[in-house]
Amino acid sequence: MGDEKTQVHFGILGCAEIASKVCRAINLSPNSILRAISSRSIEKAKQFAIKNSLSESVKVYGSYEEVLDDPFVDAVYVPLPTSLHLKWAVLAAEKKKHVLLEKPTALDVGELDRILDACESNGVQFMDGSMWYHHPRTARMKEFISDPTLFGQVKTIYSSSSFFPPPQFFETNIRTKADLDAFGALGDAGWYCIGAILWAMNYKMPTTVTALPATIRNSDGVIMSTTVAFHWEQEGTTATFYCSFLSHETMDVLVLGSKGSFHVEDLIIPYEESSASFNFTSGASFADLHIGWNMKEQEVQVHNELPQEALMVKEFSRLVKGIKDSSIRPDTKWREVSRTSQVVLDALKLSVDSGFKRVYI
Amino acid sequence: MGDEKTQVHFGILGCAEIASKVCRAINLSPNSILRAISSRSIEKAKQFAIKNSLSESVKVYGSYEEVLDDPFVDAVYVPLPTSLHLKWAVLAAEKKKHVLLEKPTALDVGELDRILDACESNGVQFMDGSMWYHHPRTARMKEFISDPTLFGQVKTIYSSSSFFPPPQFFETNIRTKADLDAFGALGDAGWYCIGAILWAMNYKMPTTVTALPATIRNSDGVIMSTTVAFHWEQEGTTATFYCSFLSHETMDVLVLGSKGSFHVEDLIIPYEESSASFNFTSGASFADLHIGWNMKEQEVQVHNELPQEALMVKEFSRLVKGIKDSSIRPDTKWREVSRTSQVVLDALKLSVDSGFKRVYI
Repeated sequence: MGDEKTQVHFGILGCAEIASKVCRAINLSPNSILRAISSRSIEKAKQFAIKNSLSESVKVYGSYEEVLDDPFVDAVYVPLPTSLHLKWAVLAAEKKKHVLLEKPTALDVGELDRILDACESNGVQFMDGSMWYHHPRTARMKEFISDPTLFGQVKTIYSSSSFFPPPQFFETNIRTKADLDAFGALGDAGWYCIGAILWAMNYKMPTTVTALPATIRNSDGVIMSTTVAFHWEQEGTTATFYCSFLSHETMDVLVLGSKGSFHVEDLIIPYEESSASFNFTSGASFADLHIGWNMKEQEVQVHNELPQEALMVKEFSRLVKGIKDSSIRPDTKWREVSRTSQVVLDALKLSVDSGFKRVYI
Repeated sequence: MGDEKTQVHFGILGCAEIASKVCRAINLSPNSILRAISSRSIEKAKQFAIKNSLSESVKVYGSYEEVLDDPFVDAVYVPLPTSLHLKWAVLAAEKKKHVLLEKPTALDVGELDRILDACESNGVQFMDGSMWYHHPRTARMKEFISDPTLFGQVKTIYSSSSFFPPPQFFETNIRTKADLDAFGALGDAGWYCIGAILWAMNYKMPTTVTALPATIRNSDGVIMSTTVAFHWEQEGTTATFYCSFLSHETMDVLVLGSKGSFHVEDLIIPYEESSASFNFTSGASFADLHIGWNMKEQEVQVHNELPQEALMVKEFSRLVKGIKDSSIRPDTKWREVSRTSQVVLDALKLSVDSGFKRVYI
């Protein structure tokens, strides 16, 4: 715990399931503290406070507006349905609240640009709620794939992100409703695959993206499962991913380079909270007569002092404090990370909607 | 070692590098023995005999015809360039020799059908030289993905098969020459990916296959690297694979089902000769608050008494002995395995050659 006076004070808009995890993360992060929670119903907000054992010092509001009007709130975390992001993220920025926004960031990049413009013109920090970027394992993996001797050039990337939720998910969850989040599994599970692939490519946009005809939609037209392919013309690099609400739980990323390769199985949520690993090989070749290999893959274990979601909050608050205390301009890296993902997400949705055509970006 | 009188006697057409591995496998397999080797040059054949420490009882011929005319040869192993398969496999069948043929089996399925017809009308066994089917690990993996409780339905498959050969490979190897093997990496490394994907789908043909525009060809037009995607309309299943002569060594297969998933890293050539493993999870889900998982993946280790290439020869010879000793009809499973792979290979080549169009099978 840090000193409350110097900590960034958070408000949360909405009581989505993920808010419980981020509540805990805010309190675990030494430079952050939870100031307020809210729901459209004061009763729901009170229940959330009890369920999450929140301190009595946390304000409990029956509307999102009250959080934005609270002068002690520095920053808001917004886990609302995607269709509400534009309205509430822009309003938050206009009220000079820094914005930590759940993914997918918006219904399209036009909306996201309006959010980013509002953040920029109001001098507030923007970041989306993808936690895995902030795990020290991610930095360690990046070191590996950036090493020209160990890894070489990226040749292809594969990712999958899937889970098989209980039946009621398909009845009630916002990610299955066209008016709340038309991207469905593509915007939810697929957001991580898109992010991981762009991360591996240093955020260079692919030349084309294509969804496969085996894309499955629910009766509302929302994507439940899809497989997609990317290609980068100049580099000759490719990527494919699978995202689904209809499959066993996976969070795989495999990156294959000219000289090395790595595999991580639990990218989005590590198996364990305090450490995570990935496997790699470099310089592998067949043994004599093509019997066996000259090596097996190696495991790299990376310890993390705080859970990755607390590291995300800590990094966000560090940037917010720089703006508040030292008048540093908002960092632009995170908005670019989100924006490239949103552009690719839009193009993939267009591919699905246009009969699985190859879409040039 | 078995009894020479009851063993299947092998001849080998050609002294390709892979022939050394299969020579050894024939002698390791208890129901098989090497009778003859050959090359277009007697000198090259003699050098091969010395290099592989072959017994003096092995005949060394300066032409392929002599092997086919040797009445003591029951079966031939054919590691010749793909463009020569039609001629020599058909001739072998006509001489009543059983045919173990290197992959890719032919330049197209029309050629393969002529080979299969020749084998059928001459009552000889056919099998292609894909070794991994014969490892007991493969049977163990099949058990897992066939289990409706542990694995459920196949949702998506990913495979990669790649290696980065030394510069002289690109100058001299038959797999880089349009007149010898126009499939290049697709027919070589990709053959395994196609096989693994079809194996996981119980040899059901995909509805469509598509190659990505990032396909790289050499100056001779031979495929050096490609990424492709499959879809099965009825099942809603997808598969993607990457095969390449331009990347670090990989032999990955990931199969994701509705209830479980598995990953094997060394499908084609196991890391070690006497045992191999794969990793699986079943029934994985997020822990509370979406922090961590309820399980980590498990490793299954499978011991094999003989190297997989010797198990391939043993299975082939078992079928040959059934035909020779008990007048059993040639087994048709292996010809169907090869034929489905060849049909998919042809469709993928067509996709590449037609500007990366989606090809309906």
